[in-house]
Amino acid sequence: MKNVIVGQSGGPTSVINASLLGVYKQAKKLGAEKVYGMVYGIQGLLEGNIIDLDEYLLDKRNQELLRRTPSAFLGSCRFKLPEPALDEKTYQKIFDVLRDYEIDAFFYIGGNDSMDTIKKLSSYSSMIYGDRLFIGVPKTIDNDLAITDHTPGYGSACKYIATTLKELVRDGLVYQNPVISVVEVMGRDAGWLTASASLVKSDDCEGVAMILLPELPVDIDHFLNKVGEIVRQGKSAVIAVSEGIKVADGRYVCQLADEGTQKDPFGHVRLAGTSRFLADLIAKTFGCRTKSMELSFMQRSASHCQSLVDVVEAEELGSYAVQLAYEDKSGVVATLVRTGNHPYSCKLDYSAVHHIANAVKKIPLEWIDGENYQVKQELVDYIRPLVEGYLEPIWENGLAKHLILKK
Amino acid sequence: MKNVIVGQSGGPTSVINASLLGVYKQAKKLGAEKVYGMVYGIQGLLEGNIIDLDEYLLDKRNQELLRRTPSAFLGSCRFKLPEPALDEKTYQKIFDVLRDYEIDAFFYIGGNDSMDTIKKLSSYSSMIYGDRLFIGVPKTIDNDLAITDHTPGYGSACKYIATTLKELVRDGLVYQNPVISVVEVMGRDAGWLTASASLVKSDDCEGVAMILLPELPVDIDHFLNKVGEIVRQGKSAVIAVSEGIKVADGRYVCQLADEGTQKDPFGHVRLAGTSRFLADLIAKTFGCRTKSMELSFMQRSASHCQSLVDVVEAEELGSYAVQLAYEDKSGVVATLVRTGNHPYSCKLDYSAVHHIANAVKKIPLEWIDGENYQVKQELVDYIRPLVEGYLEPIWENGLAKHLILKK
Repeated sequence: MKNVIVGQSGGPTSVINASLLGVYKQAKKLGAEKVYGMVYGIQGLLEGNIIDLDEYLLDKRNQELLRRTPSAFLGSCRFKLPEPALDEKTYQKIFDVLRDYEIDAFFYIGGNDSMDTIKKLSSYSSMIYGDRLFIGVPKTIDNDLAITDHTPGYGSACKYIATTLKELVRDGLVYQNPVISVVEVMGRDAGWLTASASLVKSDDCEGVAMILLPELPVDIDHFLNKVGEIVRQGKSAVIAVSEGIKVADGRYVCQLADEGTQKDPFGHVRLAGTSRFLADLIAKTFGCRTKSMELSFMQRSASHCQSLVDVVEAEELGSYAVQLAYEDKSGVVATLVRTGNHPYSCKLDYSAVHHIANAVKKIPLEWIDGENYQVKQELVDYIRPLVEGYLEPIWENGLAKHLILKK
Repeated sequence: MKNVIVGQSGGPTSVINASLLGVYKQAKKLGAEKVYGMVYGIQGLLEGNIIDLDEYLLDKRNQELLRRTPSAFLGSCRFKLPEPALDEKTYQKIFDVLRDYEIDAFFYIGGNDSMDTIKKLSSYSSMIYGDRLFIGVPKTIDNDLAITDHTPGYGSACKYIATTLKELVRDGLVYQNPVISVVEVMGRDAGWLTASASLVKSDDCEGVAMILLPELPVDIDHFLNKVGEIVRQGKSAVIAVSEGIKVADGRYVCQLADEGTQKDPFGHVRLAGTSRFLADLIAKTFGCRTKSMELSFMQRSASHCQSLVDVVEAEELGSYAVQLAYEDKSGVVATLVRTGNHPYSCKLDYSAVHHIANAVKKIPLEWIDGENYQVKQELVDYIRPLVEGYLEPIWENGLAKHLILKK
C-alpha cells in the first residue's frame, strides 16, 4: 500500500481527533508513505483541499495535543453523496483525486451519514476500479450507530454531562428555598446522552429526580403528577430532558408552547427550548421557582473533560481500521463488541457498512422505567464503564492547549 | 479563644469550600476547641441549625474532597439582616446562640450582602457585647468586591468560561459554512467574568471576535456594523456578551426584544436571553447562521475545572481570617493585594468591612476598548494569573467526587 487518506465528517466530538491519530500512527507503522488528510471531509477532497499529516504529526507533542483537541482537527462537512446513477461526475472527480495522490485506502471518521459515504464509494469502487479500499471509523456523541456496542465520543460527552449535572444538583441545593431545574441534553431521536444523567446518583449525590427520553412519548398530565410529588417534598431537584422528547401525537414537547411566544427572527414558529417550556409549565402549575438550562454545543466539544476509556477506544478504532485495510477489507466499519462489564472489556471487530449506514440505534425500551422517568440498572451498567478514567488537558497559560491547522 | 463558627452566604462558587477548609484548619491549629458550621448561613444559625465540623473534617480525605466540592458545603442563604433599630430581636437571638455555643469568633464567607451582615453584627456587638469578633472572607465569581484585588471564585469561573469558549471557537469553525455564535456570561453590573473571554486568543486559537461588557452602553447600530465586518470575512466567530449589557437609555439589551414574544409563565415580560436576542438580530440583519448559548449556572459550580491559584488563595484567605481574629480584629475582611504580575504574587491584608460592604467594583473604563468590543492588555494581564494551575478532581466511578452533609 502506497498512500492513504483520512477525513472527518458530521458533528464534532471531543475524541474524533484521537481516531485521526490512530489512523495516522498505524498507517505510518504499517508502511504507508504518505498519510493525507482531507480538509473539510469529502467536500475538501473534491476541492483538492488536502494536507500531508506528517507536517503536524511527526512531532510527538503535537500527537498528544491532537488527542486532546476538540471539534475536528481537519474540519468536517455535512455532505451527502448523490447516487452514482444520478451524478457520476462527482464520483469520477473523487477517484481522479485518489488516483492523482496514489491513494490506496480511504478512511472516513463519522456517524450515520459518513458511513453512507463509505458505502457508496466502496460500492462504486468495487464496480469500476476494484482496487481501492474504503473503511469507516465510527464516531458520534449520539451513540445511535447500529452494530457497534457504542461509539467513540459518546463516553466523553456522558462524562461531561454527568459531571455537570452533578455540579448542578449541588448548586440547586445550596439554599433552603427549593428550585426545580430542567436541564436539556442533546438527542433528537435517541436518549443515550440524557440517560447518562442516571450516573449522577451516588453516595455523594442525590442524583437527578427525573430523566425524560425521546424513546417514550411524554404524557404531560402524568409528568406533572410526578413533578408534583417532588415539589411536595420541598427540596430542590434537577430534571434531565432530551431535546427531542415528544407527546403521543408526535409533536415535540417544545411545540406545545404558545405559538405567539415562539417566533424566530423571520416570524416562523421555532422549536424553542424543551427545558424552557417544561420549566415554565412547572412554575405555572405549582407556583414554584424553576430554572432552565441547555448544555448546548458545550457537551460535544468539552475535551477538557474527556473519558480516558473513550479516548483510548477512539484511537484503537482508528488504528484497527488501518489494519482492516491492510487485510484488504473494504466497505466495512471498525466496531466495538463488549465482552464484559465486571471488569469492562471490549474487543475490536468490523461489520459490512450497509448494516450500519442510515440505521438509528435507540435505547432498548426494557432498559427504561417510563412510569417513573428513570432508567434501569442495565442502562447504568452499560454507560458507567464508558466514562471511566480521565485524560488531563495539557495546560498552557491556564487554558487547555489544542492543535490547529495553520492558516 | 474557645469556639468559633463559620458560615457561607450568597451565590455558590467552585472554591467557597476551600475557604471553609482554610477557616477550619487554621482555627484548629490555633487551638479552637470547636469549629462550628452554620447550615444555610445566618438563617440556619437563627434556627439553631449548627454542626460540629470535626464530624467531617478530621478526616484528611474529606478535606481533599471539600476543596473540590462545588456549591456551598454548609448551604447558603440570601438573608439581609435588618437594621438593629428596626428589629433588635433578631440580633438578640443571634447573640443568644453565640453565647450558648460559647463562640468567640464568627466567620462569614460571602460577597457584598454577606459583608453587610458582618458589618452590622460587628457594629452591634461592639456596642453591646464588645468581646465577640466578626470577620469576613470574600468570595464571589462576579469579582465585584471593593478593596480586594480580586475575589476567590472569580479565577475558577474564568478558567471554566475561557476553557469552554475556546472549545466553542473550535466547534464553530468545524464546517466551511460560517456561523456566528453568541455566548452569554453572567454579570449584571460588572463585566469581569465576560472579560475572561479575552484569554482565549492565543497561538492555538483565533479567540472570540467581540466582547460586550455592561460597563459601556451598547449602540446597536455600531454593534451591527462591527458584526457586518465579521460576517463579510466569511468565517465562523464567537461573540461573548454579559447578561447585563444595556443600551444608552438604560434598558437591558434583552428588553429590546418584541414584547409579544417574551412572556413568562405568568404573562409578564421577562428578561429573556441577551444572547438569544442578539443572535436573532444578527440572523435577521445579515441572513447568516447564528447560535446562542448561555453558560448559566454551570459557570459558578464547575469545580471540575478549578484554577489552582484560586483554590490556594481561597484557602489562604479563610486561614488568614482566623489569624485576624486571634489578633483581636473585628469588623474586618481579609483581602488580597497584588504585588506583582511577572511573576504573579499577592499578599494577604485586611480592610474595615464598611469600605467593602455594599460597594460594587466595575472594570476600569481605561481597560476597555469599547469602539472595537475588545479589552486592553492591562485587563488580560490582570485576569491571566488567576486561571493558572489546575486541581484535578478526585474521580470515583468516572465522576468527580464531592463531600456532602449527611441527611
